[in-house]
Amino acid sequence: MTGLVTLVGAGPGDAGLLTLRGLRALQAADVIVADRLGARQVLDQLAAEGTRLSAEIVDVGKLPGYHRVPQDDINEMLVRLARQGKRVVRLKGGDPFIFGRGREEQLFCEEHGVAAEVVPGVTSAISVPAVAGIPLTHRGIAASFTIVSAHEQIERVAGGREHTVVLLMGVNTLAHSAHVLAAGSRGADCPVAIIEDGYGERQRVTIGTLADIAALAAARRVRSPAVVVVGDVVLLSPDAAAVPTGSTNLLAAA
Amino acid sequence: MTGLVTLVGAGPGDAGLLTLRGLRALQAADVIVADRLGARQVLDQLAAEGTRLSAEIVDVGKLPGYHRVPQDDINEMLVRLARQGKRVVRLKGGDPFIFGRGREEQLFCEEHGVAAEVVPGVTSAISVPAVAGIPLTHRGIAASFTIVSAHEQIERVAGGREHTVVLLMGVNTLAHSAHVLAAGSRGADCPVAIIEDGYGERQRVTIGTLADIAALAAARRVRSPAVVVVGDVVLLSPDAAAVPTGSTNLLAAA
Ligand SMILES: C[S@@+](CC[C@H](N)C(=O)[O-])C[C@H]1O[C@@H](n2cnc3c(N)ncnc32)[C@H](O)[C@@H]1O
Ligand SMILES: C[S@@+](CC[C@H](N)C(=O)[O-])C[C@H]1O[C@@H](n2cnc3c(N)ncnc32)[C@H](O)[C@@H]1O
Repeated sequence: MTGLVTLVGAGPGDAGLLTLRGLRALQAADVIVADRLGARQVLDQLAAEGTRLSAEIVDVGKLPGYHRVPQDDINEMLVRLARQGKRVVRLKGGDPFIFGRGREEQLFCEEHGVAAEVVPGVTSAISVPAVAGIPLTHRGIAASFTIVSAHEQIERVAGGREHTVVLLMGVNTLAHSAHVLAAGSRGADCPVAIIEDGYGERQRVTIGTLADIAALAAARRVRSPAVVVVGDVVLLSPDAAAVPTGSTNLLAAA
Repeated sequence: MTGLVTLVGAGPGDAGLLTLRGLRALQAADVIVADRLGARQVLDQLAAEGTRLSAEIVDVGKLPGYHRVPQDDINEMLVRLARQGKRVVRLKGGDPFIFGRGREEQLFCEEHGVAAEVVPGVTSAISVPAVAGIPLTHRGIAASFTIVSAHEQIERVAGGREHTVVLLMGVNTLAHSAHVLAAGSRGADCPVAIIEDGYGERQRVTIGTLADIAALAAARRVRSPAVVVVGDVVLLSPDAAAVPTGSTNLLAAA
């Protein structure tokens, strides 16, 4: 093996949620190949706080209106840079192995003779609901959860309100997802929260039910990135206090 | 509000996977109320690396053969210490909001007039499979996953092998869980991985199928803590190479 690529999870976009190993890898890097979501914010915050990184930064993130660098080109770039003897960090939003194509990049490097290690990160799927006071599990309320990319069919997600569902990349298809989930055993009055831009300047929480969330989101012009949480755990959010869905009874019983 | 409690996710038991905010909270603390799993290891490693923490450490973790400090006592302790004006960190394994009772502790503090903030962490549910080269999602193989405490009924977990299932606290009930999942649409030859003591000295990966994993685990004396992963993503582990389950075809097709 020649060279080393370190895939680092940047977390949801708050430099304080970067890991210690992640920071050390960034500080030791010659080149950082960074995504936009999560990763860019963390690099900008580190710079603003005065943490010096000497690495060159290559931005491969999608900008609105532009095409993102194709995955194949990113793979080739990682191998090429590592073969030049550079210490390469691939900085990805959240955790590299959750809808992040991290294992694809790691396997590509290894198949081309470049060692690739992974530094897990704080995933947005868990940490973004947390800013709204929503845990994905809670004793007496939910003991399991499913995380799904809303690009996929969510028809198969079973369970009732005590099984939490988290949708990533779910804003554009929200009306469809809510419709499908309401038709299942959750029912149309199942609570839903949308947390936009967690840890960012546009952070905002919208709470409704499967019946009204799509209309609420349209009225409030909800935008990506956002995490959508479906299930009774939503009632644990202080923002849910105003929502008349029987939350007090439920919480008293838990 | 008098006083402040900071709930910090320690990650899976590797100090390098602690977050920067988590470390700062530990360094600023007067008292650290720590669980055993994940949390204790991180404190020990920080001490071994020479990171000075001036806080008093209160160990509320379960030791084999001893009773763990009851949850109500932990809640009361956090409030009492914070009211004494101490900066209190509650250090929990993985992420505080995943089977961690973190939101319970936070609500208890707030209901007793003590502010409580959360620093999310790297959950074992994602980071422990990663040490075995197993991503919970992978393009062409899995686009959703369910995380479930094996104490609960797993009868309701739907989907086929392309829907990854992760069992936490699953060692003692493994035979039952494998039996139930094999009866569903995954089939008895669905791949399974058990990763014991991820990031620790006893880290070990055991790979089999739903049909034989319980016997393999018994033969190898698999012990807690362990994360169990069920689904075709298991075939992405280098440890799966020797397992004859048609993995090469699948990966070539992906
Ligand atoms: C391609 S996925 C990558 C997920 C990432 N690997 C992780 O573990 O968080 C991108 C999606 O993550 C979610 N996301 C990531 N960061 C977010 C943030 N700060 N606030 C809200 N949603 C976020 C959104 O649903 C977004 O569409
Ligand atoms: C009560 S749960 C707490 C989970 C924690 N809040 C998290 O996010 O990782 C404890 C379970 O997590 C898993 N676990 C935690 N740390 C682990 C490690 N280092 N290796 C393997 N499993 C681990 C085991 O399944 C264990 O039974």
